[in-house]
Amino acid sequence: MISEGNRASRPVVRGDALLGQIESLASVGLDSGGGRTRLALSESEKTGRDLVVRWMKEAGLEVRVDRIGNLFGILRGRDGGLGNALMIGSHIDTVIHAGPYDGCYGVLSGLAVLRAFREAGVVPPRPLVTGAFTNEEGVRFQPDMMGSLVAVGGMSLGEVLEITDGQGCTVGDALAAIGYSGGEEPGFLLPTEYLELHVEQGPRLDAEKKRIGVVEGVQGISWWRVTIEGKANHAGTTPTKLRHDAGYAAARVSLFLRELSLSAGTTLATVGTIALEPGAVNVIPSKAVFTVDLRDPDGAKLTEAEKRLAAFLEKTALEEGVGISSEHLVRFEPVVFDRELVQAVEDAAVSKGLSSMRLVSGAGHDAQMMARVCRTAMIFVPSIGGISHSPDEQTSGEDLLAGTELLLDVVLKRLYRQGE
Amino acid sequence: MISEGNRASRPVVRGDALLGQIESLASVGLDSGGGRTRLALSESEKTGRDLVVRWMKEAGLEVRVDRIGNLFGILRGRDGGLGNALMIGSHIDTVIHAGPYDGCYGVLSGLAVLRAFREAGVVPPRPLVTGAFTNEEGVRFQPDMMGSLVAVGGMSLGEVLEITDGQGCTVGDALAAIGYSGGEEPGFLLPTEYLELHVEQGPRLDAEKKRIGVVEGVQGISWWRVTIEGKANHAGTTPTKLRHDAGYAAARVSLFLRELSLSAGTTLATVGTIALEPGAVNVIPSKAVFTVDLRDPDGAKLTEAEKRLAAFLEKTALEEGVGISSEHLVRFEPVVFDRELVQAVEDAAVSKGLSSMRLVSGAGHDAQMMARVCRTAMIFVPSIGGISHSPDEQTSGEDLLAGTELLLDVVLKRLYRQGE
Repeated sequence: MISEGNRASRPVVRGDALLGQIESLASVGLDSGGGRTRLALSESEKTGRDLVVRWMKEAGLEVRVDRIGNLFGILRGRDGGLGNALMIGSHIDTVIHAGPYDGCYGVLSGLAVLRAFREAGVVPPRPLVTGAFTNEEGVRFQPDMMGSLVAVGGMSLGEVLEITDGQGCTVGDALAAIGYSGGEEPGFLLPTEYLELHVEQGPRLDAEKKRIGVVEGVQGISWWRVTIEGKANHAGTTPTKLRHDAGYAAARVSLFLRELSLSAGTTLATVGTIALEPGAVNVIPSKAVFTVDLRDPDGAKLTEAEKRLAAFLEKTALEEGVGISSEHLVRFEPVVFDRELVQAVEDAAVSKGLSSMRLVSGAGHDAQMMARVCRTAMIFVPSIGGISHSPDEQTSGEDLLAGTELLLDVVLKRLYRQGE
Repeated sequence: MISEGNRASRPVVRGDALLGQIESLASVGLDSGGGRTRLALSESEKTGRDLVVRWMKEAGLEVRVDRIGNLFGILRGRDGGLGNALMIGSHIDTVIHAGPYDGCYGVLSGLAVLRAFREAGVVPPRPLVTGAFTNEEGVRFQPDMMGSLVAVGGMSLGEVLEITDGQGCTVGDALAAIGYSGGEEPGFLLPTEYLELHVEQGPRLDAEKKRIGVVEGVQGISWWRVTIEGKANHAGTTPTKLRHDAGYAAARVSLFLRELSLSAGTTLATVGTIALEPGAVNVIPSKAVFTVDLRDPDGAKLTEAEKRLAAFLEKTALEEGVGISSEHLVRFEPVVFDRELVQAVEDAAVSKGLSSMRLVSGAGHDAQMMARVCRTAMIFVPSIGGISHSPDEQTSGEDLLAGTELLLDVVLKRLYRQGE
């Protein structure tokens, strides 16, 4: 299978290097909450980027950055070009108080696979790339999966560079401030195949005692910002029935969403943020602004959930005598991954004797953007207790390694298929 | 009735001066919300204080400030001492986005009454005082009614000076920063009678078309800070039934409090502030911190409401698998004002031909602190639509003037009773 004279041998993942790098990156941006906070394009994320760039260079990779800050480590193939690449990718930005693996595991596993090729002295038949996409989490800037979205042409670079965070800082300024506004046009490097390895961030593999999740797709995501305008008034003198309490109306929405989730079965609904104005103990809130995160693997059911939410907001506005407006922040249809590549992941798991199950990702991933332009699949490893977006996120070292070795197997199978 | 040779005449309130000063003070700390924000011991409140001090001096009053920043304008009586004083008081700090009258009306009406004595050339038989107490609202520092509480010995000065705001600034430092850490010991000037004139901050006078509220007392107040500790997790992957969502648990408490208010009748309950952590669209909240404001004119019913809240928090903790703790921020028993002084207010309203009704104040007032040490009563004028703690707070100029003239009548009656 392999070339480059007598130096060449079969590429092998060095587990110690992989786990060491995961640990090092996890220590960047440590916070008081016992986790790490590396919001996209922040100073601490810059530190993480610098580290990953250094490791890419140490592994002998060519480093390229595009204008939205997507970071690529490239191992050129036999023809020396960038066409027909196989890309492994994920992200290194985090939520607030994050765990160590979300995103970073995928980027560093990709790096481990490419390093395995370099250390084995193998020039791959076509380019191999490991990528870290900008702002997958979408905490500081919305939408999430920003870098991969721009790379595949889902949003224009110009529009995205003008998006602001809560302090009014634009994506463009934040990129410039950390020195990661690169020279390449987004999309300069679109692969023909994309693989993403990730911790499951859910409880299914752990509950079913399976080592590998063969991911068939990603559920649909719908993010809303809801604004309720009530009437500020004195907490001690305003009779209950005369109140137009924006905070109480928001609480009603929260309870409605719980009922919606339970009755719809597969729909998930979350209120992750809320702000009340004026925000004093003894003043009835005049304004509540909160977000709603709706998800469903079934596009029709997601649309149904959106309609039910809209109807409930209308009803609440009437019943509470408040104004309610809502703004759609993000909408991603459910994504189905490439049947052939998904099958390749499953076959490789069987070959390695790793127990596996097929599942649909609950979380959004850069893979769902890449699926718009190339064959795409994902591999999950178990999250202990299903805990994610939390300092308590956990996956055993054994599972981390098994996932990366499986990724290498899939890469080798795709590179050295019949006829190549 | 009146002395000081032939210069003396009957004191008369100058309406233009009063309304002009109310308007001037209302323009200090104007904010983007269309109201004014003069949080206690802030820079804008200092500006308000400076203005009031200037006006006190212009009216020929002696100005004294105590160590908690309470501000007094004094017109000494015939014996030149401070004993047996009649005090009129309120406050000039505000909530966020406040209306123009809350507190300020009482302080400036007191000033108008004392100015009336000065301008009439009348030396009162005993000292007349108008006071502005520090931090009545309790938005920046808790507890509210702080200045009057310390003046009557309800909390030690040393303890109060160490209380911090949300940024870690102490009351003591804030007082020093604005130059209102005065030289007098709190309580140096305790009157034998205390009157407070205030806008109703509720809808009853306006609804009943009464000009004057004869306030018989103040309902009990109980403020809580509730902290719910759940588990952060991914919004897209965590099944609804496995969630420990601190924000959802908080919303349940909000709905419970609404039911409690409606079923208990006189009890009022408000959630005025809430903060969620980590506060991201796609993360289930691990922590919710919110306040609860409970009020009832009946002490037993207030205690009952507190018990029902505590029981619901326990139930919610069990059902949601979250930790819930609560901290008592403020507790004031219902207060009954002095029967004789209340009667004097009612008699004066009848004499002036002003329609009136007796009521219990829903809001807390400095008067309830003063009631611990002297005869106390309050006078309310109507709030249009009952709106309060809002830029839309409104009272007609005619009502403002009628209230102040009534206050002067009561003061005259108390100063020149039989035997004086």
